[in-house]
Amino acid sequence: MSSTKVLPEIEKYRKAGYDIDPLFVNRWSPRSFTDKEVPEDVLFSVFEAARWAPSSLNIQPWRFILARTNEDLEKFRSFILPGNRTWADKAPVLTLIISKKTDDKVGENAPHAFDTGAAWGFLALQASLKGLATHPMGGFDKEKAREVLNIPEDYAIHAVVAIGYQGEKTDLPENLQEREQPSPRRPLKETIYEGSF
Amino acid sequence: MSSTKVLPEIEKYRKAGYDIDPLFVNRWSPRSFTDKEVPEDVLFSVFEAARWAPSSLNIQPWRFILARTNEDLEKFRSFILPGNRTWADKAPVLTLIISKKTDDKVGENAPHAFDTGAAWGFLALQASLKGLATHPMGGFDKEKAREVLNIPEDYAIHAVVAIGYQGEKTDLPENLQEREQPSPRRPLKETIYEGSF
Repeated sequence: MSSTKVLPEIEKYRKAGYDIDPLFVNRWSPRSFTDKEVPEDVLFSVFEAARWAPSSLNIQPWRFILARTNEDLEKFRSFILPGNRTWADKAPVLTLIISKKTDDKVGENAPHAFDTGAAWGFLALQASLKGLATHPMGGFDKEKAREVLNIPEDYAIHAVVAIGYQGEKTDLPENLQEREQPSPRRPLKETIYEGSF
Repeated sequence: MSSTKVLPEIEKYRKAGYDIDPLFVNRWSPRSFTDKEVPEDVLFSVFEAARWAPSSLNIQPWRFILARTNEDLEKFRSFILPGNRTWADKAPVLTLIISKKTDDKVGENAPHAFDTGAAWGFLALQASLKGLATHPMGGFDKEKAREVLNIPEDYAIHAVVAIGYQGEKTDLPENLQEREQPSPRRPLKETIYEGSF
């Protein structure tokens, strides 16, 4: 099921410096979604992958609020910023990723955001392997999301992710068409420090 | 290169509830490492995968401090807590994952920990696909790490990860042998909220 090769539309934009599984470069964050429905078993496989992410003391601080009915999608749209709504309104599924900041075992769970990021990474890769596109957004009103979705203060709010099948670039508003391509990364040597900072 | 099936030693402990790529359950965090050296191209493929993680505005806040010489490993051992040193001292590679809390584009980069967690998730999966074990630790003295490794205040300190080839369970101290198995996860239905919290 997993990727066996780098997709042709990716090869133009991304070149791995070391031998890695193609799944890591094949995943990117397009903005154009079709209105094709995501079957429930496919959608839940995405969260199932996140479930198996590692976390400090296996606390599993991640939680996902899921919107896939018109009513729930409208609730989400009430706190997504207009710039993102121009494309995200087409996505058939939205999910808000949150994390519990405390735990009975440890009190304050310092790595809750870091661990939840790992779960998000797993989710994004499994989605890509199932042929789904995911696009995470920071552009939403977090306090409004907390209010609309009734999120307790003890949970941190991270990202809204649009999930669905990728659409055509030409279906996007013109100003977004030129951004509709996989993004590059800085060289690895600027990220790794040998021995000390 | 990626996983084609769930490994027999995993099947005993983990069962996915939805159809996911086996790579997500095959990855776990053993404590027993052999002293077999990790070839440089294999080691760097692990960081290369992390490089392609998604991040807010493509800021890529993650950084990795790498220890693979005796001198550098000793520096790391100076801040790892004794309980972890009983097993982590055998790992041929240690890396400290940190993240830059600010960015020229945005000032304070709120999702730095979350985004760096995604990079850690990518790293852990690529390691597993290359036959490497990774074990992340929170059990170390962060302030001492900051001092020993000369880490600026503007960087958050997340986890030390032991990297190497998995050893035999019987090579561990007796009290750790019983914990040397893949951990379970809570049911997905306790993690997903439909529509609102």
